[in-house]
Amino acid sequence: MDAAVLTAARPRGDVETLARLAKGDMAAVDALILDRMQSQVPVIPLLAEHIVSAGGKRLRPLLTIAAARAVGATEVENALKLAASVEFIHTATLLHDDVVDGSERRRGKVAAHLIWGSATSVLVGDFLFARAFELMVETGAIRALGILAQASGVIAQGEVLQLTRAHDLNLDQETYLRIISAKTAELFAAAAEAGAVGVGADERTTAALRSYGLNLGLAFQLADDALDYGGSSEALGKNAGDDFREGKVTLPLLLAVARTRGREDAFWDRTINGNQRTEDDFRRARELIIGTGAVSATLDAAGDYADAAKAALKVLPRGDWRSALESLADFAVSRAS
Amino acid sequence: MDAAVLTAARPRGDVETLARLAKGDMAAVDALILDRMQSQVPVIPLLAEHIVSAGGKRLRPLLTIAAARAVGATEVENALKLAASVEFIHTATLLHDDVVDGSERRRGKVAAHLIWGSATSVLVGDFLFARAFELMVETGAIRALGILAQASGVIAQGEVLQLTRAHDLNLDQETYLRIISAKTAELFAAAAEAGAVGVGADERTTAALRSYGLNLGLAFQLADDALDYGGSSEALGKNAGDDFREGKVTLPLLLAVARTRGREDAFWDRTINGNQRTEDDFRRARELIIGTGAVSATLDAAGDYADAAKAALKVLPRGDWRSALESLADFAVSRAS
Repeated sequence: MDAAVLTAARPRGDVETLARLAKGDMAAVDALILDRMQSQVPVIPLLAEHIVSAGGKRLRPLLTIAAARAVGATEVENALKLAASVEFIHTATLLHDDVVDGSERRRGKVAAHLIWGSATSVLVGDFLFARAFELMVETGAIRALGILAQASGVIAQGEVLQLTRAHDLNLDQETYLRIISAKTAELFAAAAEAGAVGVGADERTTAALRSYGLNLGLAFQLADDALDYGGSSEALGKNAGDDFREGKVTLPLLLAVARTRGREDAFWDRTINGNQRTEDDFRRARELIIGTGAVSATLDAAGDYADAAKAALKVLPRGDWRSALESLADFAVSRAS
Repeated sequence: MDAAVLTAARPRGDVETLARLAKGDMAAVDALILDRMQSQVPVIPLLAEHIVSAGGKRLRPLLTIAAARAVGATEVENALKLAASVEFIHTATLLHDDVVDGSERRRGKVAAHLIWGSATSVLVGDFLFARAFELMVETGAIRALGILAQASGVIAQGEVLQLTRAHDLNLDQETYLRIISAKTAELFAAAAEAGAVGVGADERTTAALRSYGLNLGLAFQLADDALDYGGSSEALGKNAGDDFREGKVTLPLLLAVARTRGREDAFWDRTINGNQRTEDDFRRARELIIGTGAVSATLDAAGDYADAAKAALKVLPRGDWRSALESLADFAVSRAS
């Protein structure tokens, strides 16, 4: 059964339009990243290159650039540095996350800690985090720096919260949203906000871009959670079913557990609380999660956040950048169907 | 054999004079630390409190306060916040260090990662690091922020360098000094420099305080290294012999290896490269290290750095604060004899 049949038609959207517009800026950001991850200690650039070059879509620094450009900035030197800082912070959290979760793969490659060891991964994460702040200091944009410092604190708190509650079937939806807001959406929000602040945008525009980023981040994360049960591994960029295999409680699972209360409690208790999960269990979980409409409900929620993200952009001047950001919000959800 | 008999008499010095002068300021710093380590996620303040309250002498924030006061500042609000930031950065590196080294004890207590797990320790370290930068942003002292951001990067690089070379008998003295400069002395230097910059001291004074901190940090670290072979566990605050037990290469060991070349190669090769170390081996290593004068040579080097630290203070106005800082430099070495 495909998740696509369960969701109402939505605009498809894409990320390429924005990537094309930002191509020159992003090349400059990549050059900055490469330059600032160097160190006299040979293993540092080696490990950093392993994860940075795998790259993916660089959505977060793209948001910083897009925010600066969308408010009409032509002098984007600060935004480039802030964008590189955002990617450094993101990479540092990925390195630490993979150590914390014992993940085996990242961005389609073997996770760094399996090659260089957990110790080095932790320390190179620290190094990249420090480099992020050094770059921000160069901009002199102390307010942008404050936004990203605060976001870093929120992310760490979200990760600790997830760590302590990730396998808890009694997790309520509100706490779950709090976790993904902190762990994922906060950096999207801060990336966009910092881009606007870094080029001197006014309060109203800055707040709008923060709201766009936050809602976009929630849409992306919820669509990811849905894809893990309703999508193909290709669409997901990692193996479908990984959340279940790791016993990770996400919104589709929480909804399905609630919707099968009294009927499947033993199954959920054994597989999630009891940590006994076979591939047959995954197929059964997937059936229950799709069958109860939990995947489509999750995608509906993602769609609502994508709509809120687009609505936030209305205070921005119309133009190519704003349209591309709108399309990115649609893409967050449509890639999952 | 006691290391004391091997070293020339030096002024004894103490830390209490400075601690007494800074008592009021440090109480304010402690209150700030307690306030800013709070979080809605319950395990975070719990873990932070475990390591922060064990506290020790709080040498690094003490340096920030002393630097600000020694240059004559009376308005020290910024210095208080910078001092708390310095302690947060230090605490974050301790948490990560203990995970990286698998250390069992810290500040006389069970290491946090053995109570709450490595994952939580890594993430709470990240949280404290982020909080440090949030506090610095509040001061608006972007130059001080830059100094501490850079120091954080240097520390991480020093730790990676140590990780890759710590058990290498071919480590040369220069690389060893590079490691302890980065890993230990840099934060002492940055703490003092940031304190001066945060209250608007001139370039010459700021550079002098940085130099004081750097040399003081080297003196402390070398005296620590000497104490591990020549001192008592009480003077050290940890078990004497821990460096040897962990196969960690420090200056006394490097000197002894060089001074017993052709005679004890097999012993060093088995114990350090071969990772076979009994308590008898430690006693033998200790005899060789003291017998060849390697402990006293290390203490002499520490003494030279302490003297350089004191000399750097000459550009500062005479007074209680300067005297107390001089006494602290002497204490760095005299506590080891």
